Amino acid sequence: MEMDEEFIQYVERVENLNEIIGILHWDQEVMMPIDGINARAMQISTLSSMRHELIVDERLGELIKKEAGRKNEEEKAIHREIKRLHERASLVPAELVKELSQLTSRAFPIWVESKQKADFRNFEKSLRLIIEKKREMANCIDREKDPYEVLVEDYEPYLSLSSMEQILSELKDSLIPLIEEIRERGKAVEEAFGDSFDIQDQKYLSEDVLNLVGYDWQRGRLDTSPHPFSMGNVFDARITTRFEEEDIVGGLLSTIHEFGHSLYTLSLPSEHYGTPLCGDMGMIIHESQSRFWENHVGKSLSFWESILPIIKVRFPKTKLGNVEHIYRSVNRVKLQNPIRVNADELTYHLHIIIRYEIESALIRQELQTSEIPAMWNEKMEEYLGITPENDSVGCLQDIHWSHGSFGYFPTYSIGSILAAQINHCIEREVGNLEDLIRRGDYNSLKEWLNKNIHSHGGKYTTPELIKKATGEDIKIDYFIQYINEKYSNIYEI
Amino acid sequence: MEMDEEFIQYVERVENLNEIIGILHWDQEVMMPIDGINARAMQISTLSSMRHELIVDERLGELIKKEAGRKNEEEKAIHREIKRLHERASLVPAELVKELSQLTSRAFPIWVESKQKADFRNFEKSLRLIIEKKREMANCIDREKDPYEVLVEDYEPYLSLSSMEQILSELKDSLIPLIEEIRERGKAVEEAFGDSFDIQDQKYLSEDVLNLVGYDWQRGRLDTSPHPFSMGNVFDARITTRFEEEDIVGGLLSTIHEFGHSLYTLSLPSEHYGTPLCGDMGMIIHESQSRFWENHVGKSLSFWESILPIIKVRFPKTKLGNVEHIYRSVNRVKLQNPIRVNADELTYHLHIIIRYEIESALIRQELQTSEIPAMWNEKMEEYLGITPENDSVGCLQDIHWSHGSFGYFPTYSIGSILAAQINHCIEREVGNLEDLIRRGDYNSLKEWLNKNIHSHGGKYTTPELIKKATGEDIKIDYFIQYINEKYSNIYEI
Repeated sequence: MEMDEEFIQYVERVENLNEIIGILHWDQEVMMPIDGINARAMQISTLSSMRHELIVDERLGELIKKEAGRKNEEEKAIHREIKRLHERASLVPAELVKELSQLTSRAFPIWVESKQKADFRNFEKSLRLIIEKKREMANCIDREKDPYEVLVEDYEPYLSLSSMEQILSELKDSLIPLIEEIRERGKAVEEAFGDSFDIQDQKYLSEDVLNLVGYDWQRGRLDTSPHPFSMGNVFDARITTRFEEEDIVGGLLSTIHEFGHSLYTLSLPSEHYGTPLCGDMGMIIHESQSRFWENHVGKSLSFWESILPIIKVRFPKTKLGNVEHIYRSVNRVKLQNPIRVNADELTYHLHIIIRYEIESALIRQELQTSEIPAMWNEKMEEYLGITPENDSVGCLQDIHWSHGSFGYFPTYSIGSILAAQINHCIEREVGNLEDLIRRGDYNSLKEWLNKNIHSHGGKYTTPELIKKATGEDIKIDYFIQYINEKYSNIYEI
Repeated sequence: MEMDEEFIQYVERVENLNEIIGILHWDQEVMMPIDGINARAMQISTLSSMRHELIVDERLGELIKKEAGRKNEEEKAIHREIKRLHERASLVPAELVKELSQLTSRAFPIWVESKQKADFRNFEKSLRLIIEKKREMANCIDREKDPYEVLVEDYEPYLSLSSMEQILSELKDSLIPLIEEIRERGKAVEEAFGDSFDIQDQKYLSEDVLNLVGYDWQRGRLDTSPHPFSMGNVFDARITTRFEEEDIVGGLLSTIHEFGHSLYTLSLPSEHYGTPLCGDMGMIIHESQSRFWENHVGKSLSFWESILPIIKVRFPKTKLGNVEHIYRSVNRVKLQNPIRVNADELTYHLHIIIRYEIESALIRQELQTSEIPAMWNEKMEEYLGITPENDSVGCLQDIHWSHGSFGYFPTYSIGSILAAQINHCIEREVGNLEDLIRRGDYNSLKEWLNKNIHSHGGKYTTPELIKKATGEDIKIDYFIQYINEKYSNIYEI
């Protein structure tokens, strides 16, 4: 690397501050005594401000100009990422950043309370103010552009919104009739598991499975938190999961999902720690990794074949169906479920599409906040045939909007689409996935992912990386094919 | 508070960065996966540099000048603390800070290895280089002053070294003959406890005892780490302890010691979080709190009376002597022990005095590093009648010098002296300590400590605070009286 030392220092500081903020969040969710939040809020706000000041520093702007026109691919990538951060942040007035941060800080407990009371009106004003400020922010960044597109770029700066919207639209067109058919003609699938599983034993089971797929405990740890997440860097990529006594499958899949995230993080090029080269390429690639492991590995027949002996050892008293029954049970379509995070591989995307349609309309001023509950319930009925009992299990269920995260939801679905495309490539280039899993050959999977995705770190943009890894642009076909085969088989339609 | 907003922002940033560095250290010791150190070192170094830049910022210097001459006591204290930091740090060239930080980073693993191999010569060069740089640093800060005094001021800026040295000298004169007498005429005290205690049950016992004395779990937690420590702020004051299977007393006393630190932290004036007013007044006051709880409470007869039923419940199979025997056993003078952290209330101070005499001579260039092992063993023989088996249990046992901490050791002893003075005041103003403990009346103790010490936070300097709390300057008399009574009784001399 021949870049200017002062320039690299800016880059490294920004990256390390991000890491530290990540640790403070992890600690807050997993370890911090409850009253610690009083100090933690100030600590995080201090670091966020200092990070912001670094990023918008005029001196950094000069260095970015000086370092432009680098030929080396890695230097270009570092330059691209810090330039994007700098330009974006420089366009937003500090006052607006502060207002938004205060608004979301205040909105969060109101959202918690409103959700508890199933009272959307209690939350509406906070949400309206946040949306106004987010629009203002989008306008500051690019007055000419669709404000929703500008906000999506916070999570996925490189894949165009039009291509994402195209996918979401095709997804909707394919899934609604398929779910409809399952509802009408599909055989009901009964629960294959008993109804009570000791939490500590579930944790041991998760650890067993992490050992099976090969999680590196020297660089990671497993804890529990109300909302599972993963955090960290190539040297320290921790995951959390969540266990419920009555649901052995949910906790385990959550562990595998987060393992997918952490495997990506742990395979980044460590020699570049402290620069975006040792960072991930955004939410879509990240989610493709977690969904690949959760859906394509963790919900496969051979995976459940291979872990059945472990389950029997950990839960000697539980009644279990045979493995085909378990497989169908793990994958069954939850036709009555109103909650996104509990959804199956089919209905999940309609939950996402509802959020995408509503949030994009809100940001584009095509919908008023007061209309959200009615619109939500209407779409739920139309797409899924469900009317949520109340707003707590309806439009208040997700934390995202209270945080000011608009444009995040689509990345979940696009990540799943990409996971299917990756799965297709692996089957073509490495072998049949069910066979690999049956043989316990996770290394071949990990080698492919490492070589084609993880090891590139932040070098290529999302579309470049997808093209490099799969030989094609992102497309929905592999997902549609996969999902049709899988569910026709399960539901005998 | 009417201070300039920009000035207060500097103050709050420095305080919050300190807190965050504390959390990163806690996480590193208690939670971090082992390989995480690769990223953690960069994270801490990033924050330390940014903190240093803030402190030496010329703009802060201007603001300090502008804010001078404040009349309000609290404003004066904030000004005093940030001014001290700014002036001290501004006198040391950034290059020297960096060199010292690199030297100590490199020295640490060499110390670990040298200690393992009991090979002082392997460590000597690193130590010599650190001492040279520490001297250089002291000279930068004040070329006219005794360099050791300058370094001590890092840990205790307000109590003069001459008064500390006076105390250490009197301590030595009193303790050597007392220990000598115990050696010659004292009755041997036998171990009152069995020799194997389940670690998990020891942790439960520590939690029981923390509940007994009233630790606030909403603002704290107990974990284990190789070296017990406490960290945090008024909203989040965590402690760690260490258990050994063969020693039930050591782990428990370690918990109580750290509880004393955290009680201080948890009783600081929370409305001033983010400023030095919600900070502690240095190592001596801190150590007086931990030693008060460890020695005066945790080693008292009535304390062991009150926890004996808990021990019996937690360890139903262990053989126990009667409580007087246990008391004598907990307090027995370890005449053959070469290790500071395992020492009793008497010999402990001679371990400290040896370190103080050696480190001050090294910094004052009255002693060469090559002479350390011989000097150490000579003093051990002279003061304690012990010759360490090797340097691993001799001059290599403590981590401090490898970190560049010179001038820290004396604060341990001075803290104990102050604890006895505080104990004396409490007995005068609240009541007999043994009675209070027997009645489980920890609240009266905590109220006195809170009112007279904790609630003042960083408002008063160490001598001011001692005078305010005890009505006198620090003096050794109460300690000498306490220690003579206690040990004459135990050893029937």
